[in-house]
Amino acid sequence: MDVFEAIFTRRSIRKFTGEPVSADELHTILRAGSYAPSAHNYQPWHFLVVQDAAVLADLTEELPHSKMLAAAGCGIIVCGDSQRQWIPGFLMEDCAAAAENMLLAAHGLGLGAVWCGLYPDVKSADLVSNRLSLPQGILPVALIALGHPTESRTVAERYNPEKVHFEYW
Amino acid sequence: MDVFEAIFTRRSIRKFTGEPVSADELHTILRAGSYAPSAHNYQPWHFLVVQDAAVLADLTEELPHSKMLAAAGCGIIVCGDSQRQWIPGFLMEDCAAAAENMLLAAHGLGLGAVWCGLYPDVKSADLVSNRLSLPQGILPVALIALGHPTESRTVAERYNPEKVHFEYW
Repeated sequence: MDVFEAIFTRRSIRKFTGEPVSADELHTILRAGSYAPSAHNYQPWHFLVVQDAAVLADLTEELPHSKMLAAAGCGIIVCGDSQRQWIPGFLMEDCAAAAENMLLAAHGLGLGAVWCGLYPDVKSADLVSNRLSLPQGILPVALIALGHPTESRTVAERYNPEKVHFEYW
Repeated sequence: MDVFEAIFTRRSIRKFTGEPVSADELHTILRAGSYAPSAHNYQPWHFLVVQDAAVLADLTEELPHSKMLAAAGCGIIVCGDSQRQWIPGFLMEDCAAAAENMLLAAHGLGLGAVWCGLYPDVKSADLVSNRLSLPQGILPVALIALGHPTESRTVAERYNPEKVHFEYW
């Protein structure tokens, strides 16, 4: 898939067949996340892949806006290592860039995905940290639900000239 | 360019010919930013494009790590609207996803780009806000220097199995 097609046709997908994501597909998506830019090239991310149905069901029950996770069959928690990048803002930005690469890669493979925000929502982040035994200093920034889509969504034009400024605001 | 080629061969580019970025190229890149995902689909970003040589020279002089900006010929400030998304962490994540789309789009067009971090570095963010008269509540999150590259950089393998965890940490 062309990079512009990927960017301009990607949508959040929340309906899935339940068919498992293959190991090859997963590797490609995790590799895509690993090629994101990061402040000082610290690459301060970790990826925790959850495919165990019981754990997914548990997360689905507890986390808001995550009902699609059980049917997706796969969740990737994009985590930031706050010892490697100690400025939380930059850590979140680096993890977000990695997450976006992964969403585009999923779309490029014909899979569907949706980004569920965790940190800085403390309640969601603490829940994931506790359930999945994240070490101290590892912040769960985003949960990507990933699977084979049963929906395809059109995209409205998002370019808004009112949000673009030249030279001066 | 294929989406995987874009993701896996993009690098930070800091050496430029000085040839101007065309209006069409710029539009494509700004549009790519506009198609990023965002929390609740608030799309809380603004893009401020700076091409005035005097303003670029002024920014270059004051901002750390921005020496490439004058030769690049174009800077895009990715700003977050803190009234539209009032949780700063999500605002930064949304702007980072937009910035990553723009970096991939620039690479896909054969242009070069590099992301310079601003907010939450308060000194850099305040400097940009003051110099470019950003309204109250608009946070400059990232400065993307954009231009025609004179360097092409190889990419080391970045996938690190030590950063990938399955089911449990």
